[in-house]
Amino acid sequence: MIFIKPTMLIAPDTVRKNLQNMYQKARKHNLMFRPHFKTHQSGMIGEWFGELGIDKITVSSVDMAEYFARFGWEDILIAFPVNVNEIDAINKLAKQIKLSLTVLNIESVEFLAKYLTHEVDVYIKIDAGYKRTGIVWSNQEELRSLAHSIDDKERLDLKGILCHSGQTYKANSVSEIIDIHLESKYRMKKVQETLRSIKKDLLISIGDTPSCSLADDFEGIDEIRPGNFIFYDLQQYKLGVCNLSDIATSVACPIVSIHRDRNEMVIYGGAVHFSKDTFIEGDKNIYGYVVILSDKGWIFPNSKMLLTKVSQEHGTISVSPDALLEFKTGDFIGVLPAHACLTANLMKGYVDPDGVRYDHLAGK
Amino acid sequence: MIFIKPTMLIAPDTVRKNLQNMYQKARKHNLMFRPHFKTHQSGMIGEWFGELGIDKITVSSVDMAEYFARFGWEDILIAFPVNVNEIDAINKLAKQIKLSLTVLNIESVEFLAKYLTHEVDVYIKIDAGYKRTGIVWSNQEELRSLAHSIDDKERLDLKGILCHSGQTYKANSVSEIIDIHLESKYRMKKVQETLRSIKKDLLISIGDTPSCSLADDFEGIDEIRPGNFIFYDLQQYKLGVCNLSDIATSVACPIVSIHRDRNEMVIYGGAVHFSKDTFIEGDKNIYGYVVILSDKGWIFPNSKMLLTKVSQEHGTISVSPDALLEFKTGDFIGVLPAHACLTANLMKGYVDPDGVRYDHLAGK
Repeated sequence: MIFIKPTMLIAPDTVRKNLQNMYQKARKHNLMFRPHFKTHQSGMIGEWFGELGIDKITVSSVDMAEYFARFGWEDILIAFPVNVNEIDAINKLAKQIKLSLTVLNIESVEFLAKYLTHEVDVYIKIDAGYKRTGIVWSNQEELRSLAHSIDDKERLDLKGILCHSGQTYKANSVSEIIDIHLESKYRMKKVQETLRSIKKDLLISIGDTPSCSLADDFEGIDEIRPGNFIFYDLQQYKLGVCNLSDIATSVACPIVSIHRDRNEMVIYGGAVHFSKDTFIEGDKNIYGYVVILSDKGWIFPNSKMLLTKVSQEHGTISVSPDALLEFKTGDFIGVLPAHACLTANLMKGYVDPDGVRYDHLAGK
Repeated sequence: MIFIKPTMLIAPDTVRKNLQNMYQKARKHNLMFRPHFKTHQSGMIGEWFGELGIDKITVSSVDMAEYFARFGWEDILIAFPVNVNEIDAINKLAKQIKLSLTVLNIESVEFLAKYLTHEVDVYIKIDAGYKRTGIVWSNQEELRSLAHSIDDKERLDLKGILCHSGQTYKANSVSEIIDIHLESKYRMKKVQETLRSIKKDLLISIGDTPSCSLADDFEGIDEIRPGNFIFYDLQQYKLGVCNLSDIATSVACPIVSIHRDRNEMVIYGGAVHFSKDTFIEGDKNIYGYVVILSDKGWIFPNSKMLLTKVSQEHGTISVSPDALLEFKTGDFIGVLPAHACLTANLMKGYVDPDGVRYDHLAGK
């Protein structure tokens, strides 16, 4: 392939393999599969999910729900605390599709009850230990009063409870991820129990890619909403969640400068392409690994090359003296990103090895 | 003003004041003023520069040069090492406007000499101490051989030497910034001297906002290219480069959740709005300060509120218990960003207090 400037690549076979694995896992454990589309944000990639019969999706904004509704998705959960200021767009969507909203306080419920013009399903956001947002799992009083408040309202149908155990991203081992998963599962079941007298059979929905990828005990869980698994990335790899060969995306970047005196190359590829998310390797914050581009995608180099610094458009890569001899200004290298979601959001679209371009919500 | 979702605001009076101050400073020191437009990336804000008679600008990509050429700018420097893969777009631009390119190796010069169809001006990128890219200022042999190589070529007109002393962003005090500036100035003059036998009167062009804002000794310097000064931000404030009242942009974000048990609010405003750039306060990485929105823009709250965490769409704000009582779900607060350039790049446009919308390169 010929590239001109920084370009995000996908490996369609790897994307489809990741999708197939998670889909089969959901089937095996009899789980509803409501994948999160905030990672790829692409209508065309979304179709690959549709081909498997998947008909429920998760998104993280009203904008994203509107975009995927245009691609024909008819059952969309916005897994982000409802922003009541967007009521007009919410009403428009709720008229058109089966829309599920996420709530975590009575004020929002009262607002929705007053201004919703169509029915929506509702999930209560639970804080099962991540401490970002949601009602704390053990706060029975608040849980009950919120559930009562929803249950009272004509256009709100209380369907489930959801959590995102994002603390798995800080885990130090695979077994710690499993422990977090089991703890969250226990807590979600406690919440379900707490609310049983108000609403029977509330769905339990969990979300994070580390748990959904690694865990094998989903007893009591009804629905999973992983997103990142479709591409994976180096943060997941470092956590032990995936192999390097599972990472389905890289960014092709041109080398613009070679610095033999300090064993570095500078690429056109910086914070406006990768964001500034990192993972730790040794005692350093790393932004990505270099891969060698090939006709069929990319392959791993013999010696590791790291994206060690980024500024707005510049990226700095550490290279061994020998490896440095293989590159010249103008060559393209690939970079596996630390965090695929933020990189995809910035790059606004993908290209596959056949040159097919994939649209994206943020693309033009 | 009424907001619906995260919206980047500008304070036009502050933007114009920042512009006027830097413009007057350039005049006072008899410097050519070639402002960097990568911070605002807006054709409309660019016009405010044009109103002062400014007719030379700096950008950081070919895309940005094309965008501003469409707005009528006819003298544009791409202050990023030339990506030879973009030769077709470069030729198109060079035909249309007075284009200046940045080079730092002979391979690129040879490539340009072979494939350029129109004349361009050339700046040599100098590493005056930042160690990101450029030819090291003291490497006389490499400097001379590159300058010779450019001087030989028909369509390349060697105009100047440029540096970006980005190490000022790591300085611990204003006096350290001044020291870096004076050191860079000395080194750039040495480079000019080294190359005098090849090309007389090479322009010395410097770039970083901290030096351009704080320094008062520009003897020997011909051109300044600051960009961030137009908005400033909290990184600049923490460096002692600007006052809080000089920060000309904030992001209006809706509160989606209030957590009284841990004195936090969650906003719809995360890494896809602010990027993940930070500054240090105490021993913490901070993403922004909260400001109170008003009809005329924003004002500072009585007690400091900090954006302490961001994930894809969520931002977490630390608030004192008293201050927390003043907010409810659905209210909008403003956030002064850590790094205005990356935030502006993600937000893709601005609104002023009169509701005027400002276009942006990355906007739709």
